[in-house]
Amino acid sequence: MTIDLNADLGEGFGVWRLGDDDAMLDIVTSANVACGFHAGDPALLLRTCRAAVERGVHIGAQVSYRDLAGFGRRYIDVPPEELKADVIYQIGALQALASAAGASVDYVKPHGALYNSAVTSSDQARAVAEAVHAVDPNLPVLGVAGSALFREAEQLGIHTVPEAFADRSYRPDGQLVSRRERNAVLHDTDEIAERVASMVRAGRVDAVDGTTIPITVESVCVHGDSPGAVQIATAVRDRLVAEGVELKAFV
Amino acid sequence: MTIDLNADLGEGFGVWRLGDDDAMLDIVTSANVACGFHAGDPALLLRTCRAAVERGVHIGAQVSYRDLAGFGRRYIDVPPEELKADVIYQIGALQALASAAGASVDYVKPHGALYNSAVTSSDQARAVAEAVHAVDPNLPVLGVAGSALFREAEQLGIHTVPEAFADRSYRPDGQLVSRRERNAVLHDTDEIAERVASMVRAGRVDAVDGTTIPITVESVCVHGDSPGAVQIATAVRDRLVAEGVELKAFV
Amino acid sequence: MTIDLNADLGEGFGVWRLGDDDAMLDIVTSANVACGFHAGDPALLLRTCRAAVERGVHIGAQVSYRDLAGFGRRYIDVPPEELKADVIYQIGALQALASAAGASVDYVKPHGALYNSAVTSSDQARAVAEAVHAVDPNLPVLGVAGSALFREAEQLGIHTVPEAFADRSYRPDGQLVSRRERNAVLHDTDEIAERVASMVRAGRVDAVDGTTIPITVESVCVHGDSPGAVQIATAVRDRLVAEGVELKAFV
Amino acid sequence: MTIDLNADLGEGFGVWRLGDDDAMLDIVTSANVACGFHAGDPALLLRTCRAAVERGVHIGAQVSYRDLAGFGRRYIDVPPEELKADVIYQIGALQALASAAGASVDYVKPHGALYNSAVTSSDQARAVAEAVHAVDPNLPVLGVAGSALFREAEQLGIHTVPEAFADRSYRPDGQLVSRRERNAVLHDTDEIAERVASMVRAGRVDAVDGTTIPITVESVCVHGDSPGAVQIATAVRDRLVAEGVELKAFV
Repeated sequence: MTIDLNADLGEGFGVWRLGDDDAMLDIVTSANVACGFHAGDPALLLRTCRAAVERGVHIGAQVSYRDLAGFGRRYIDVPPEELKADVIYQIGALQALASAAGASVDYVKPHGALYNSAVTSSDQARAVAEAVHAVDPNLPVLGVAGSALFREAEQLGIHTVPEAFADRSYRPDGQLVSRRERNAVLHDTDEIAERVASMVRAGRVDAVDGTTIPITVESVCVHGDSPGAVQIATAVRDRLVAEGVELKAFV
Repeated sequence: MTIDLNADLGEGFGVWRLGDDDAMLDIVTSANVACGFHAGDPALLLRTCRAAVERGVHIGAQVSYRDLAGFGRRYIDVPPEELKADVIYQIGALQALASAAGASVDYVKPHGALYNSAVTSSDQARAVAEAVHAVDPNLPVLGVAGSALFREAEQLGIHTVPEAFADRSYRPDGQLVSRRERNAVLHDTDEIAERVASMVRAGRVDAVDGTTIPITVESVCVHGDSPGAVQIATAVRDRLVAEGVELKAFV
Repeated sequence: MTIDLNADLGEGFGVWRLGDDDAMLDIVTSANVACGFHAGDPALLLRTCRAAVERGVHIGAQVSYRDLAGFGRRYIDVPPEELKADVIYQIGALQALASAAGASVDYVKPHGALYNSAVTSSDQARAVAEAVHAVDPNLPVLGVAGSALFREAEQLGIHTVPEAFADRSYRPDGQLVSRRERNAVLHDTDEIAERVASMVRAGRVDAVDGTTIPITVESVCVHGDSPGAVQIATAVRDRLVAEGVELKAFV
Repeated sequence: MTIDLNADLGEGFGVWRLGDDDAMLDIVTSANVACGFHAGDPALLLRTCRAAVERGVHIGAQVSYRDLAGFGRRYIDVPPEELKADVIYQIGALQALASAAGASVDYVKPHGALYNSAVTSSDQARAVAEAVHAVDPNLPVLGVAGSALFREAEQLGIHTVPEAFADRSYRPDGQLVSRRERNAVLHDTDEIAERVASMVRAGRVDAVDGTTIPITVESVCVHGDSPGAVQIATAVRDRLVAEGVELKAFV
């Protein structure tokens, strides 16, 4: 039994830093590297790609709305044709940097508000899927099972990789509890590690209403920029290893 | 006898346009397409690449300092490591867009203030050359014979393509007259066509002091954004054809 | 009987231009000057303010979402506290430029997608109104009668100035026909001039269904960046003058 | 005997933070608040102004080149007319935010590469001075005694306030040792506190060659974003208080 661990990386800009990239790269097997639209100046991205290569961590393109001021967390009503071009641009930029670091971009994952709108909006999901397909039809997409993005991607023959979130609560219908509600985010390290082990080994997770629901997961997303992030990610990794699960990129 | 004609294209941004890209694409054989740092939002760049492909015009990456407000015309003291990453990023972004349009990026040409600093600054020239080499050692660089950029590129084994400017005055030493001096730019259509014919056929051009100097040219740069630009570019093309010179991309 | 004519100005950026600002400044009595977030580098804005001052045209702050790539035409889900600060920032920036040109900012008008969301979204309307109030409670707001913006502004004691659009179709309920529908925009110069005369003199306009509806208007917005814009704006002005209406800023 | 302590604040952007603004605001008497061109989104700047007001700390406009990616640390060859407008824009933006927080902008201090070029370049210094004068001729400028900025400001009748740096080495001619040389920055807390006490009380500082030179200082700049910054700034403040120097804004 194997599982992939992914985290967002390269999310500083210029003089600013976010999270502890070096520590996270020692934990995860896949790095969602920013592409400059919500974070990530090229020099930082190049260093991040090199650091990933040194540790054998796979690189994905973490594409976003163009929004440095909002860190890509604000929905922007971008027309699909513009969004498609924006995503192609970002993937290509990171491909060249990854290539300069001796690696390649192995998958694509939308960031922030684009991640959310690609779950529900067919128009925006299709724009992202078409962008990925235009760059390379063999590039998989990392996201949520049952999302508009997965439907659109699959219609284009793109491979989809379902992920679960280590520290987020789930509704009985399998969707995430909104961050605007309390209990949306889990903070207890042991509880998080326990949940991830259940997700990965049994394909089940406890929803907020106490029911146990099935979950399909080929990768687990751990966060790198919250307080205690490195500690939680380490606990998740250690627990999975202790359970005999092999940590291995999905690519 | 063949010659390449190149022009800067895709230099709008969002709602803004610059020059008549469609008209210029009917004239030139190589399009220096902006890469988003001095101009060029991704949707415009994708359309520009598609329009170039339709006409069989080759695509080059017109890389720049990050400076939308100054259109890349202001020198920025970017440390070489940052500049290298900036250039890799831009080339990669355009490669993906060109690929989505069914083409490829066939060469690299610096824009504006970066073009000028790459003529004289070894540090900045080396950063550009290393970026090109990191993306693809087989990608040629379009620029000025005798420049720092050519020296640095050639040391890395990069093919260099010397260009001349249709509408700019030359000093006796073969360098361009600065735009800050009068007579830096020629405006007479017939005179410009005549000069280009002499450059291409005889390898000679009249400098501002009246002397005739040798010039090495494999491509002629025509401008697309000045008044009368399309008319001048058409005259240059027509004159070359009339002289029996074949217009053909250098790639 | 007097009426104000307003138009959007200073909407270039760096090397890019939009519309014929000089021609429009000879026509209008109020200039909605961009503030740098959707358009307008400071040097252009300063020149625009100076040109307005020379002609006795009043200056308003045309505030926007932060979105150069989308020209402020894309809705952005900005949290109210951020939006409020963004609007304060923009008004202040233009105040200093207007002051350097010997004038002042006499009113505020939202641009593009922010204009639209301030019609219907109480949260965003309140953020804009609070920003105006924080800068100067005596600064009027130019917009649509019956909008959320007007409600929020009036609750804060801000003076509101209702405007009508010279070249846009109205629904029977007094709202604009969406640009996504055909017939949203009028193009016939005579028809536009006739409608404006009716709006201003009789307080009535023909809606798309043929009914005649009342309209409250203290300022008429003419566009400066569409084909024939200057000609249409001139016709509107000439017609109003011919009807004995005095063109005069509302301030 | 009184002295002002100043520090750079509000230098995050969006999700990113830099330094411990709250801690520094408890130490300094003047806050050089960023204006959005090298750092500082409006919401952060508004919060920073409010926090300064709560503590009675005076607010200055820390104006910069337009360069988020380089944090304003890269020289940009901005034409003087553009630079002047950029500086007016920034001061005005912060004035409105400071006003919304119940305060005013009491002085102007250039940041980073603009600070350095305003020391030596008359053209850029004059642009900054003219911008300050255009906004408010009574606004003082904080900077280096003997600089081009001070000459240009004084010619326009602008009040100039000389500052010294707590943690930087001085050459025998009174200029700062370049950051590219070793020993440019001091790190020992006690040594820094001792030097500042000598500067303020005796008007003297030891240069790198061991000579003692005179120094004119009405404000001492302490840094907020380096390791140990808060500790050093606290030590400087405590030492000055212990010596009977009153900490008081220069305004």
